[in-house]
Amino acid sequence: MQLSWTSFLLCAALAAAPADLIVSAGKVVTMDAQRRVITDGAVAIAAGRILAVGPRAEIDRDYQAKRRIDRPDAILTPGLINTHTHAPMSLLRGIADDLDLQDWLTKFIFPAEGKNVNEEFVRAGTRLAVLEMMLGGTTTYTDMYYFEGAIADETKKAGMRGVLGQTIIGFPVSDYKTPQAALAGAELFIQKYKNDALITPAVAPHAIYTNSPETLKAARVLADKYGVPYIIHVSETQKENDDCAKDHAGATPTAYLQSLGVLNTGRTLFAHSVWSSPADIAILKAHHVGVAHCPSSNMKLGSGTAPIAAMLDAGVNVGLGPDGPAGSNNDFDMFEEMDLAAKLAKVTSRDPKVLPATKVFEMATLGGARALGMEKEIGSLEPGKRADLITVSQSAPNAWPAHDVYSMLVFALNASDVQDVIIEGRPTVENKRPLTLNPIEVRRQATAIRAKVDASLK
Amino acid sequence: MQLSWTSFLLCAALAAAPADLIVSAGKVVTMDAQRRVITDGAVAIAAGRILAVGPRAEIDRDYQAKRRIDRPDAILTPGLINTHTHAPMSLLRGIADDLDLQDWLTKFIFPAEGKNVNEEFVRAGTRLAVLEMMLGGTTTYTDMYYFEGAIADETKKAGMRGVLGQTIIGFPVSDYKTPQAALAGAELFIQKYKNDALITPAVAPHAIYTNSPETLKAARVLADKYGVPYIIHVSETQKENDDCAKDHAGATPTAYLQSLGVLNTGRTLFAHSVWSSPADIAILKAHHVGVAHCPSSNMKLGSGTAPIAAMLDAGVNVGLGPDGPAGSNNDFDMFEEMDLAAKLAKVTSRDPKVLPATKVFEMATLGGARALGMEKEIGSLEPGKRADLITVSQSAPNAWPAHDVYSMLVFALNASDVQDVIIEGRPTVENKRPLTLNPIEVRRQATAIRAKVDASLK
Repeated sequence: MQLSWTSFLLCAALAAAPADLIVSAGKVVTMDAQRRVITDGAVAIAAGRILAVGPRAEIDRDYQAKRRIDRPDAILTPGLINTHTHAPMSLLRGIADDLDLQDWLTKFIFPAEGKNVNEEFVRAGTRLAVLEMMLGGTTTYTDMYYFEGAIADETKKAGMRGVLGQTIIGFPVSDYKTPQAALAGAELFIQKYKNDALITPAVAPHAIYTNSPETLKAARVLADKYGVPYIIHVSETQKENDDCAKDHAGATPTAYLQSLGVLNTGRTLFAHSVWSSPADIAILKAHHVGVAHCPSSNMKLGSGTAPIAAMLDAGVNVGLGPDGPAGSNNDFDMFEEMDLAAKLAKVTSRDPKVLPATKVFEMATLGGARALGMEKEIGSLEPGKRADLITVSQSAPNAWPAHDVYSMLVFALNASDVQDVIIEGRPTVENKRPLTLNPIEVRRQATAIRAKVDASLK
Repeated sequence: MQLSWTSFLLCAALAAAPADLIVSAGKVVTMDAQRRVITDGAVAIAAGRILAVGPRAEIDRDYQAKRRIDRPDAILTPGLINTHTHAPMSLLRGIADDLDLQDWLTKFIFPAEGKNVNEEFVRAGTRLAVLEMMLGGTTTYTDMYYFEGAIADETKKAGMRGVLGQTIIGFPVSDYKTPQAALAGAELFIQKYKNDALITPAVAPHAIYTNSPETLKAARVLADKYGVPYIIHVSETQKENDDCAKDHAGATPTAYLQSLGVLNTGRTLFAHSVWSSPADIAILKAHHVGVAHCPSSNMKLGSGTAPIAAMLDAGVNVGLGPDGPAGSNNDFDMFEEMDLAAKLAKVTSRDPKVLPATKVFEMATLGGARALGMEKEIGSLEPGKRADLITVSQSAPNAWPAHDVYSMLVFALNASDVQDVIIEGRPTVENKRPLTLNPIEVRRQATAIRAKVDASLK
């Protein structure tokens, strides 16, 4: 008996497969097809991928890990996916709040960017943005800015996942003086990162009102040549729709893009889509266009309320984004975007049942992955997917008493409750401490550059 | 020369007045009449009151303190004033989200309260609520619930300031079976606390649709007998307005209360006032009625958007409140209410200039004090006022780079950034640690009671 018991244990130990890391938590929100929420669960990780997800006892029986992170008082979830931002604008945070969009752009943002944006600015701004995003539970972010190659370099160094869109715009900007030059630069950028584990390069024509139809089409050709996402601001303001109708025989921006043929092929992500008509929503669905909903930005700039519930009902893939922090928001807080998305939809529809917590948490995870065309890689905790996951501590009073996990995640917990962040199997935040960026250095550089920016506006 | 220099120092030391506490910070936001923001400033405190506010060098020259709290990397502001909540509902947090108001009330809240609310419940719920509120920078909160005497006892023990309204309602509830009994109980409660430094007792007839006109008037008489606030939910939903119009010859709830004469005298605070007409706003102004704006609650329940900008333009005193955390919100986060108040007003009006950060921060401090009729005691950092103040750390990346303090406080900083809380001159939170409540015990009790509540609903 003694012998056979020992043999059993030996066999079990021998049978346990190796893992790089096991993360366990009081609750595991998988976002898998069955939407399993596992009490006392764990995730085994190897080579940057998820090996298994299940009850902790099973994972411990089946896997032997070099390293463990145990959080009995936390909720383990897929990492949050930010589908729209402009990371380096972190350095312009709060530079001009409470202003008309036109004043904000022409008196502050364009002058500040024109005088200050260069590769050094973009690198320092990316480090600050990525530090804040990671600490708040974001594991993938989607960007559109200048010098996107430098942004990719900093993002990769910090161990963050990024879908990074090189801006293409019809007038001279900091990195390229013509859209042709930007398209050529974008191609080199795509070639450099197209097989990267963390960086998904993308082409980002800014908007229909800042690009010619030829440029919009050329950007599509480039995106399709490499199978990368095509990211564009669409129908952010009523003015954009009104101007489009005037210039293009009554068409909405979405219908105009469809008429150019740029929605026919490949992956497309629209940012905002505030002023989407029912016909627009049908176009989004028909062409598998993803939408990045930015409630903070749309509220703060007074842009309007995107018809998100109608989009979800139609089967459109919708993710969430904080947009840039220089006026349209002041932070990169995905927990705030979740809370706002739910509340904005409810008050606008005057229906508290609209956008329940389950749907909102899906937008912040799997929905965002789908909007980016990356649902086979990220967005849920399932074997084979990339190991992007976070733990959210329940140790603060706003988490007590414990109740429905989705309700807690969307309405009660905050970015500050995020305890650990694992991206591509690598812990980048552990027990609220960042492991891949030096906060003192990030702050010092941000402060120094901002002083120059403020001086440049005087 | 040597001698006279020593004499000078000696005289200076002798001249320094004693203080109990000096709190200094990188920036001091005073909310005084000049709206001074003092760089490297300090506040001297004695006997629960503010002695002086000024540059740190001056305060250090003029006062000698027994104790110091120095926060060069924080912003020091008046404590935040919550003008509407139901503290013990912390125990029902998230019990039923994303539901119609009627389902929420009749299937969850009323049964849960009917079966579970007693003095023990109220005490445990108050401790949890006060712990969360304090950690998030609230120094005064306004309550409406049952067993308000027990709430006052717990609030005072925790060192929190409260404006605590005993509910008067026209049907049997947990503490009193008739409004007459509730009024009699309220009088005893008021007598006990009327001269308390921390507790301001109040009379809180629940709403016009749950009380007879006789009760509404009797509550006014009681409030005026002791000069305490009269707190009532008004025009929270369109249905309330529609029903009132049917029952009272087309009158709005505000006009109906005016017609009863209950607005003619004393201090009055309306919670919500979502469906206020321009005529209602004129009544609020004429009778000095304060309004507790609850953006989270109004959004989450789909109630509508209160015309806050119009109220402020008309000179109505408006404060902010998170309402209860059992469905209308899920937390007591005044930073979230500030952010939401600004963004909701901007998106509703489609004007980003509406409710700028300066006005919103005023609502959370001095505006709330005015709405409560307490602006001579709290709401700003001025000599003679009660020493209610907080420090908000800038050590997290969401605070970088530093910019306009009001914009930071409203749009970028969070409850989790609150570092110290001083109420009536007493530190109740120091460096994010609560000093007057035991979190482990608070959590244990909340968890145990919630388990009973959940079982009672099965």
